[in-house]
Amino acid sequence: MATMNYLTQCTFDFGALAHLPKVLRGAGVAAPFIVTDPGLKANGLLDRLLSALGAEPAGIFAGTPANPTETAAAQAADGYSASGADGIIAFGGGSSMDLAKAMGLMVSHDGPFARLGATQRGVRFITAIPPLVAVPTTAGTGSEVSPGAVVILEDGRKETFVSPRLVPTAAVCDPELTLGLPPLLTAATGMDAMTHCIEAVLTPVVHPPAEAIGFDGAERAMAWLERAVTDGGDRDARWHMMMASFEGALAFAKGLGAVHGLSHALGRIHELKLHHGTLNAVILPHALAMIGNAAEAKFARLRRALGLAANADLPQAIADLNARIGLPASLSAMGVTVAHWPGARDYAVSDLATLTNAVPFDAAKYDGLFQRAL
Amino acid sequence: MATMNYLTQCTFDFGALAHLPKVLRGAGVAAPFIVTDPGLKANGLLDRLLSALGAEPAGIFAGTPANPTETAAAQAADGYSASGADGIIAFGGGSSMDLAKAMGLMVSHDGPFARLGATQRGVRFITAIPPLVAVPTTAGTGSEVSPGAVVILEDGRKETFVSPRLVPTAAVCDPELTLGLPPLLTAATGMDAMTHCIEAVLTPVVHPPAEAIGFDGAERAMAWLERAVTDGGDRDARWHMMMASFEGALAFAKGLGAVHGLSHALGRIHELKLHHGTLNAVILPHALAMIGNAAEAKFARLRRALGLAANADLPQAIADLNARIGLPASLSAMGVTVAHWPGARDYAVSDLATLTNAVPFDAAKYDGLFQRAL
Repeated sequence: MATMNYLTQCTFDFGALAHLPKVLRGAGVAAPFIVTDPGLKANGLLDRLLSALGAEPAGIFAGTPANPTETAAAQAADGYSASGADGIIAFGGGSSMDLAKAMGLMVSHDGPFARLGATQRGVRFITAIPPLVAVPTTAGTGSEVSPGAVVILEDGRKETFVSPRLVPTAAVCDPELTLGLPPLLTAATGMDAMTHCIEAVLTPVVHPPAEAIGFDGAERAMAWLERAVTDGGDRDARWHMMMASFEGALAFAKGLGAVHGLSHALGRIHELKLHHGTLNAVILPHALAMIGNAAEAKFARLRRALGLAANADLPQAIADLNARIGLPASLSAMGVTVAHWPGARDYAVSDLATLTNAVPFDAAKYDGLFQRAL
Repeated sequence: MATMNYLTQCTFDFGALAHLPKVLRGAGVAAPFIVTDPGLKANGLLDRLLSALGAEPAGIFAGTPANPTETAAAQAADGYSASGADGIIAFGGGSSMDLAKAMGLMVSHDGPFARLGATQRGVRFITAIPPLVAVPTTAGTGSEVSPGAVVILEDGRKETFVSPRLVPTAAVCDPELTLGLPPLLTAATGMDAMTHCIEAVLTPVVHPPAEAIGFDGAERAMAWLERAVTDGGDRDARWHMMMASFEGALAFAKGLGAVHGLSHALGRIHELKLHHGTLNAVILPHALAMIGNAAEAKFARLRRALGLAANADLPQAIADLNARIGLPASLSAMGVTVAHWPGARDYAVSDLATLTNAVPFDAAKYDGLFQRAL
């Protein structure tokens, strides 16, 4: 039985940032609180947001870490509560947007934060959060339109929070904000979008509209990502990659798979500070190779969408793309060692994304995936 | 600047009807009022709905005409108000669903109904209507997920009403309900879905997710409609055609085009009682021929989606499909004469769908389209 939900409102194009005040008014926000990260404060993008805003925000939290944590969200929540804000602007990549969602949950829900997590079936407890307007500055996560947030809890787990209430009230997607994104971050976030599209397409969950969007997003990422990496000022490439990111998140309304299961499990290893998109990029070819013939019809349609020959080696085509855009070829190259696996294995198996993988994935399968990707 | 909205919840599969009580509870409806048509009362489908409901409804209006009218909606509204209902079940094809939406507007909005119409920019005045659960019994209109309703006003205009508030709260799509649909109605409603997908894809409005869904729906309709017409009991074909219908309405979030402009204009001619889907089917090849090279990139992708050769004549392929599934080849064959044109022309030009046609369409262009299709 397919249950399908689509829910978003998005203003999308070069120059969209100028529409922010109107979008905030539409969302009923008079005193916004901005959640962002130190990099955007340093590189001047936050100033452009403030300039577009045209008025002082109620407050700013610019301390989002590379992977959002419960601790940082709690600090942001204190700032929000003290500020008199009536809504949230999430400004940045997936980390800022997810942290803003976590903060939104904290300021509107009592009790331990962890009980709201998906592995605790927390969706039962999640009610409205303050109005949230998302303004992405990377093209990959799609968090501006997704019902999810991934946060490292104080107990060390990387937990997913999922609820229709976490879909931002509105998104303002301005590719202009991504023109200065360095090549490596462009590549890594772009492959996050690609992975969303491909894993969403491959899950057995029945949701043809989301699947159609996933195929389109994958086609778009294959056509434009390399150009965006090679020439960051290519406006067409930036537009299409931001759209691929948006489409990836609409697509994964269907669910994700083992790439994300393993990526989340490794992403929580604090000392490594691994980038989520890079992890996805490295793991994706190996997960595809393990799915192989089990999804032949979808592989065929993916080959067609990606512009590959009918008999092309799909996993190899992804690995080749990774190489062309300068991403590492293995987890080892990112600093992961076999010693990291025992502490990550169970997190991968119990990750929400594992439930919807193209083929059933247990601990033994994850052992194999980790070894291949290492 | 693209503004994108998706908004629906749909329970979709064989057996979905059994979920109706749960869906109603989820929508907060304890005392539903059913809007349907005389045919479904006569053929026993209404009894199946009542049986799935498990409790007496607050009331039933089974007087939906072939093309919904303001007069009939007002009668239904009287029934609704007298019944003590707290929500609506729209049960039937596009006419019942659109009439239910019109009735919902009437019981929750004061003042003349016509002021709420799209040509009067009525969306400004449209606030919440009672919760509405749509249960389609045909596969074509997609009204179960669309923000629109088309109603013949008392002054004779065929007006479109559009608002996010008109998207049904939930849809229950059970292909089982379409197994008994006769071949001609299967063909005509199926071509309505096909037309939605193709016209939506071709509008210049930028909305890639909706466009991807439109391509997918067109591919699905081409692959399955003929089978559904040939063997009404083919469950796979019925499933896919109901999905194509659903996708068509998600796609036309982008807008429609001149096929619908002309179809609406002719559909309001009372004495002819023309079927909307049949009109679309007959007009579609001619509108495509008039668009021609102006949309070559999209034509190429449509050919690919429809499984046609790269140099295939797309308008002819649609005309051929019409012939194979037993639909008329011309408006004349449906009873339309040149004498009908002067009274319809202005309605076509001012129709909402005309605004988003693939190429600008004025009165002279409509003269040409009418003559070709006649």
